Amino acid sequence: MNIELMGQRAKAAAYQLATLTAQEKNQLLMTIADQLNTHAGDILAANQLDVADAVEQGLSPALIDRLTLTVERLADIANDVRKVCQLGDPIGQVIDGGELDSGLKIERRRVPLGVVAIIYEARPNVTIDVATLCLKTGNAAILRGGKETYRTNTQTVNVIRKALAQHGLPIDAVQAIDDPDRQWVTQLLKLDNYVDMLIPRGGASLHKLCREHSTIPVITGGIGVCHLYIDETMETEQALDVIVNAKKQRPSACNSLETLLIHHSQLDSFLPKFVARMVQEGITLHVDQQLLSHPALADNGFAQATEASYRDEWLSLDLNIKAVEGLQAAIEHIREYGTQHSDGILTENYQHAQDFVNQVDSAAVYVNASTRFTDGGQFGLGAEVAVSTQKLHARGPMGLEALTTYKWICWGQSTLRA
Amino acid sequence: MNIELMGQRAKAAAYQLATLTAQEKNQLLMTIADQLNTHAGDILAANQLDVADAVEQGLSPALIDRLTLTVERLADIANDVRKVCQLGDPIGQVIDGGELDSGLKIERRRVPLGVVAIIYEARPNVTIDVATLCLKTGNAAILRGGKETYRTNTQTVNVIRKALAQHGLPIDAVQAIDDPDRQWVTQLLKLDNYVDMLIPRGGASLHKLCREHSTIPVITGGIGVCHLYIDETMETEQALDVIVNAKKQRPSACNSLETLLIHHSQLDSFLPKFVARMVQEGITLHVDQQLLSHPALADNGFAQATEASYRDEWLSLDLNIKAVEGLQAAIEHIREYGTQHSDGILTENYQHAQDFVNQVDSAAVYVNASTRFTDGGQFGLGAEVAVSTQKLHARGPMGLEALTTYKWICWGQSTLRA
Repeated sequence: MNIELMGQRAKAAAYQLATLTAQEKNQLLMTIADQLNTHAGDILAANQLDVADAVEQGLSPALIDRLTLTVERLADIANDVRKVCQLGDPIGQVIDGGELDSGLKIERRRVPLGVVAIIYEARPNVTIDVATLCLKTGNAAILRGGKETYRTNTQTVNVIRKALAQHGLPIDAVQAIDDPDRQWVTQLLKLDNYVDMLIPRGGASLHKLCREHSTIPVITGGIGVCHLYIDETMETEQALDVIVNAKKQRPSACNSLETLLIHHSQLDSFLPKFVARMVQEGITLHVDQQLLSHPALADNGFAQATEASYRDEWLSLDLNIKAVEGLQAAIEHIREYGTQHSDGILTENYQHAQDFVNQVDSAAVYVNASTRFTDGGQFGLGAEVAVSTQKLHARGPMGLEALTTYKWICWGQSTLRA
Repeated sequence: MNIELMGQRAKAAAYQLATLTAQEKNQLLMTIADQLNTHAGDILAANQLDVADAVEQGLSPALIDRLTLTVERLADIANDVRKVCQLGDPIGQVIDGGELDSGLKIERRRVPLGVVAIIYEARPNVTIDVATLCLKTGNAAILRGGKETYRTNTQTVNVIRKALAQHGLPIDAVQAIDDPDRQWVTQLLKLDNYVDMLIPRGGASLHKLCREHSTIPVITGGIGVCHLYIDETMETEQALDVIVNAKKQRPSACNSLETLLIHHSQLDSFLPKFVARMVQEGITLHVDQQLLSHPALADNGFAQATEASYRDEWLSLDLNIKAVEGLQAAIEHIREYGTQHSDGILTENYQHAQDFVNQVDSAAVYVNASTRFTDGGQFGLGAEVAVSTQKLHARGPMGLEALTTYKWICWGQSTLRA
């Protein structure tokens, strides 16, 4: 394997992809979807070997489930590819333009980024999702999947490359780094000559590695320490439904609730009902030191919330609870411990809602709603490459547009600058 | 000096700036403009010391001119600040939005980035330009100017901080690193906890330093190895005017022409007139090896163009000339040696124009026009923070919008994800 060469080939392929029409790209995607069905046998056989290894290595049942493909799951993935065809193609869109005083006609046109590299966890669907979203937007992709799914990824990438060849397109438009050695990641991070954007999808240590060592522009995200704050005006029953939804609808998702902040004046009326509901829903509370002795909590044997419980994702049916003096204290807690992902307020007060929304500096801010909506599909983007928690380029769910940039095109008549 | 503390203070100030109205920000800018006039004496006195040092150190007259302030220049700078007031405020703009199937109402609202750090060359006007553009967009700024203008920068930043105080705003909204020791830059590059965007405005080595060592998202740009390609259909006279404008209108600018590519069939008719005009304009040619023996060039004693002349900016009245086989060869030269800044084609052929524009991957691509238009003012942005040659976030001239990000705001009625 030669990473430099992979970069060169990806760049060369990207120049070709940039000239494709929307129709040509959609035809390619339809072929990929069809070939995923045709070659389902090969892909599932490779996946069985990956799963067998995972079982042998004692991976958790949740992780094993996540990396397992079935005929039905593969068919769903292929159908997702067909759905991407139906999305509008952002490439070629004229963002704005006009005529300058000099007579020069100018337009800002949306174009592909070029080459996108993605480092991701052990989910075989991500390989296909990300590759097809890149192809839809005329980008070449370099993929580095989790080592637990190498065999599966190799097979699916083969299917994609065969489809590229079938359409007379460069197969190196999609390349996988399919040797689990970490040295290739280290080398990939330095490919700024060829790679235009790097998306690490994984835990905090991968993000740190990329922030510190990548010379390629990086988009980090996908880590969500999400908060809800109930202020003194909110009714208990409605709040409980939102809290349960935000925590429980899919606890392993990055937009699930991790810490509940509650206005101190609500404690006596709220806590008894809250505790009863949490116990009923199977949610384990981690209680702020100051609340541990509250009568509604004291006899339940809940653990004390620690600095680490506030700072890290639970991704499980665990929830921190803390009382605060008011809106500003809630905002300060979120600024200190949040990851600028998704945070919300539950309130009946107009000004509190406005202040929260204006002052909380997160990708998505909510009033009276579950944080679980932060998602490309839910937000109407039709697809999702990643969820960015940084502020440059794209923030929150990244759809097709986040895989594009623009160029300024200027049409003159031997036009000179005065 | 404590860089970590500067970052903390900038972040705290940014939270306050983010809540200002457009009117409040404009009032602040008007005060800054007025105070620049009021305190002109202090600023000019500091500048005279900087200039005296520069003279003593034997800096070039061009550089000394660039760092010299006069009463008139300072008045112009103050007027530029007043013009920024007249620009529309992008903050608060709703980019798009709607109602989701769940009933959740969603909007994507433009907000400040937060804290912007800029490392820049020895131009006293940049301090004021950048600080006021950041304030206009509700961002805090950390400024690191060229060491040749430290005294001037300290005085101008003092004026800005006094204006902030006068409006009851945190003075740490604008901070300068006014110790020339390079260790502060190294420390600044690691402040990703507090700084949201870093813009290095300077040479290739500064860009490399930032790309390799910054953990803050970086926008690089401002280095322009710009090309024009004359194809076989273009008339000589018109081409010459564009070439001279692109090269000579301001040779030290990053959007000035560095290399001329010419279709080989044009050589005999074009070169004699071209050489005569260049000599007349005082432009020194650097001739590709293959052209050195051409009768129109052989007897002029021009230097041979080298790998370095193709790869680096001249920023002077020097120009490379090279013959190519056709459009594809021109595009390949630009891909290999260009900096994705500004490149153009001179042609009468419709398809050549389209192909060039589609296939050249630069921030600005031109048909039959001078490359000198790549500029925030010229492009109608009203101001310019920098010219980006990377593809993430902003490309080409960066105006106010490039100093913003967006957040997703979701308004619910105890809305749950199904």
